[in-house]
Amino acid sequence: MAQITNHIENFKMNINEDFVRKAQELEPDLHYKTVRPAQLVSFQPSDAPDKPDGWDLPVHNRADQVFDWIPCRMKPVEALDTMPLSKGSSVCLDFGTHHVGYISFSLTPAGSPPDAPAHIRIKLGEMPCEIMEDTASYQGSISSSWIQEEYLHIDELPARISLPRRYAFRYMELKVMDTSPKYQVLLSDVSCDTVTSGDMSQVEPLNENVPEDLKRIDAIALKTMEDCMQSVFEDGPKRDRRLWIGDLRLQALTNYETFKNYDLVKRCLYLFAGLTQNEHHVGACLFLRPAPMVDDTSLFDYGLFFISCLHDYYQATGDRETLIHLWPAAYHQAELALKRLDERGVVKDSSDWWCFLDWNDSLNKQAGAQGVLIYTLRQALYLARLMCSETSGAESVKQLEGWIETAVRGALEYLWDKELQFFISGQDRQVSWASQIWLVLSGVLDQESNRRLLEHLIKEDPPVGMVTPYMYHHFIEALIQNDMKETALRYIRFYWGQMADMGADCFWELFNPRDRYASPYGSRIINSYCHAWSCTPSYFIRKYFN
Amino acid sequence: MAQITNHIENFKMNINEDFVRKAQELEPDLHYKTVRPAQLVSFQPSDAPDKPDGWDLPVHNRADQVFDWIPCRMKPVEALDTMPLSKGSSVCLDFGTHHVGYISFSLTPAGSPPDAPAHIRIKLGEMPCEIMEDTASYQGSISSSWIQEEYLHIDELPARISLPRRYAFRYMELKVMDTSPKYQVLLSDVSCDTVTSGDMSQVEPLNENVPEDLKRIDAIALKTMEDCMQSVFEDGPKRDRRLWIGDLRLQALTNYETFKNYDLVKRCLYLFAGLTQNEHHVGACLFLRPAPMVDDTSLFDYGLFFISCLHDYYQATGDRETLIHLWPAAYHQAELALKRLDERGVVKDSSDWWCFLDWNDSLNKQAGAQGVLIYTLRQALYLARLMCSETSGAESVKQLEGWIETAVRGALEYLWDKELQFFISGQDRQVSWASQIWLVLSGVLDQESNRRLLEHLIKEDPPVGMVTPYMYHHFIEALIQNDMKETALRYIRFYWGQMADMGADCFWELFNPRDRYASPYGSRIINSYCHAWSCTPSYFIRKYFN
Repeated sequence: MAQITNHIENFKMNINEDFVRKAQELEPDLHYKTVRPAQLVSFQPSDAPDKPDGWDLPVHNRADQVFDWIPCRMKPVEALDTMPLSKGSSVCLDFGTHHVGYISFSLTPAGSPPDAPAHIRIKLGEMPCEIMEDTASYQGSISSSWIQEEYLHIDELPARISLPRRYAFRYMELKVMDTSPKYQVLLSDVSCDTVTSGDMSQVEPLNENVPEDLKRIDAIALKTMEDCMQSVFEDGPKRDRRLWIGDLRLQALTNYETFKNYDLVKRCLYLFAGLTQNEHHVGACLFLRPAPMVDDTSLFDYGLFFISCLHDYYQATGDRETLIHLWPAAYHQAELALKRLDERGVVKDSSDWWCFLDWNDSLNKQAGAQGVLIYTLRQALYLARLMCSETSGAESVKQLEGWIETAVRGALEYLWDKELQFFISGQDRQVSWASQIWLVLSGVLDQESNRRLLEHLIKEDPPVGMVTPYMYHHFIEALIQNDMKETALRYIRFYWGQMADMGADCFWELFNPRDRYASPYGSRIINSYCHAWSCTPSYFIRKYFN
Repeated sequence: MAQITNHIENFKMNINEDFVRKAQELEPDLHYKTVRPAQLVSFQPSDAPDKPDGWDLPVHNRADQVFDWIPCRMKPVEALDTMPLSKGSSVCLDFGTHHVGYISFSLTPAGSPPDAPAHIRIKLGEMPCEIMEDTASYQGSISSSWIQEEYLHIDELPARISLPRRYAFRYMELKVMDTSPKYQVLLSDVSCDTVTSGDMSQVEPLNENVPEDLKRIDAIALKTMEDCMQSVFEDGPKRDRRLWIGDLRLQALTNYETFKNYDLVKRCLYLFAGLTQNEHHVGACLFLRPAPMVDDTSLFDYGLFFISCLHDYYQATGDRETLIHLWPAAYHQAELALKRLDERGVVKDSSDWWCFLDWNDSLNKQAGAQGVLIYTLRQALYLARLMCSETSGAESVKQLEGWIETAVRGALEYLWDKELQFFISGQDRQVSWASQIWLVLSGVLDQESNRRLLEHLIKEDPPVGMVTPYMYHHFIEALIQNDMKETALRYIRFYWGQMADMGADCFWELFNPRDRYASPYGSRIINSYCHAWSCTPSYFIRKYFN
């Protein structure tokens, strides 16, 4: 996800001090581990005809289908010892896989005594394109400040340099901008102190008879989870490095099948309920530093997903105390969302950034939003009935039942196109993958009709497709819930398996099999290549195929 | 001065631990003072036709003859409070005069909560050209790493930022490279903790009847001294930030008339004697950090100036203990220099960087070097005679007398051109200002002939002129020593007075009245605008015109 200007007029944050304190008490310990680069590497364009001369190791074809850069000219890290770097020269280190952490290295002068500062540039990239493509050419819609590139002057050499910022990366390039004609620098002892609140030892191994390719996909998804588990569940450790509720929902589902860090989910739930927007609407995302704060981005679906997150958390933990605390906030999200229903029982459409669903610019959100509404109202009803078994709450149950009935009727009467046999969305009656999937998940049709709709969807393949693992997740979930597990597995292999084949260390924020340059932000170098919402293969594999 | 590749083959540093310890014991206290910007400023090209609109204060014509940039659009610093800075916008602060120190400032977000790091650029300049000219266009011969420009990412806002490096500057520009479309930053509370080992309270005021223009020149020279007085006498606080013996000699002379920090000179003398090059040659410059170390640059004149520095120090202090310690090292420099005399008693010429004299590429160094040799041998003889009054040393006196006689005869027989009535230098019999001046200072002619030669020099104005205040210093000294004080004063006013009229806060490393773009390094933005060797007007004014 990323920032889009839809901030609220006269934005004001409501703070529930008790909830925030509770969240802060649940702040997890962070685990640190020192890792070192695996090798030196260069990259050549995948259309380059020849392998460069003078290098010891063979050209490796990992990633030669991704992003046009082939790793080549690998050398052992020890080669740095005899590689003095002068003005303009650079070296790229490959840490072997994705890491999140803090970089340190030593620079030693070679030649005459250093008679000018060393001026260096450090680039860190999750993918080769981030190293190889010119930062200055970035003209994307979100801030270039996310690009992991630093310029440093070092006045005294030798020096041990510890960069203060946290990076997400596999590749680290050091380029000497200048030293002086009289000396060069030697790079040595490069390390990264990785950081995570995830504890991989809590994750059970898969059954041995799980196919190897699924094991590989599961391992990449676990690595994605691990690197996104920090002080909260971050969406991506490179960008945006914060708590988005859309990501949280899928991370939490995966967490229950893997890391089982229930307290981290609980912390995030208390943060969202403790820091709300105008009218106590749950925000789309939160900042933790310098102090916990809700962003002024408000999204229809993301607000409703607070209900989902609480529902799933209760199902996983049976933690009734938390449910009692947070149920009023959850119910209130349903009340707020209902204001958007028109007299027909259909969610009002608009052209601004009011509902997310997927990063597809051409997607109309109305039908998908209707699906999300019904889906989350049903989860709210489940919780309301639980709460109702206490002294009160019958009113909420009745309200929710009524709302669901209205919204289901609205969906069936106004959004279902009998002729097309598809749900349509918006004034232009758009047929999209997202609309069908969310209305399948909402359960407005019976299972037989859902199955028919999903098969029809696959067969017709309407052009308004899915571009994120986030949307693919819902497609897989819809297939599984409608007894189409084999098809679901085929799509897991097609989508996440393809990323794995392309050498993904973690799963990516964006993957459009039809367009390797796809980015909603205007440049692939700003995409996140370790992204929480892409981690759900571990959820599916462990829950349904283990 | 600056690094030139003339490093010594098989360079090795000789360390006299006692001398180095002595030097370290003399490490001065540094005085810190917090200063704040005086105003906001912009610059327009001096050929720009119109004054920009919408600004309150009139165009100021300070510096409109320097470097093509006219300060304009001044605003009070308080204007920052209502000046949110977004992507691409910048603000330039004018601290009112030159400072050396450590910068701190606060950045506060405005708008939505910061949803991306702030990426900023800080430029610090002694002169407007450093702010306004594009750093990327620098193609000079010395390291671009001297350019005072930093790029910073700030992950958390609000933030108090203290830059770790020491800067020399008057102007500070902050440019926002990016924030995000959702927020801007406000700059506030900018300050600089200035640093110097100079104590201005030790400097006596000039007599009241000294003319105002000389008072102004003296004040600028004192500021230059103050900003160059750090842990040692630095050549320039922007660049090279180290102890060069050519600068030390002139700083020490000025110091005796002003700050009277005798211990700082003593410290520098012990450093040069304690850290020598191959054959115990005194190096041209020293580094202090991370540990004291002599550079591998070796210059004929700079080695000999160790004698000068010791001579002048003894004359100012009468510190016989230091003289006894350091005299052997001084005498040894004479012995080493004598090896360069040919059988005619003339210093051998060569085309490499063997002798400095001045930053004039076309200058042949032979005659000037001959002058420096005789000048410093005479000072050595003065010291030898002092030492001789102890139990031994008659041999040194005799040696020195012989060497002086040889070199004087060599100069008169082979370098004096009777027809031209000038000293000539090198195979091409070059006539330069530097050759005449140094051979005047060496005293090979009588005072009457010196005066005639200096008048002839001024009248004929040979094209190989002087380009540094360092060379102008020797011209002034030559005039004064030959009873031409009025002419000396005229040239002080012509040269340093012109810099003062151009708005100099400190005196510059380079000033060629014929070429405002002059730089021996290929770009004026890398020149030092607060440079030790330019501080001697205070020496002249206080010694001869007070």
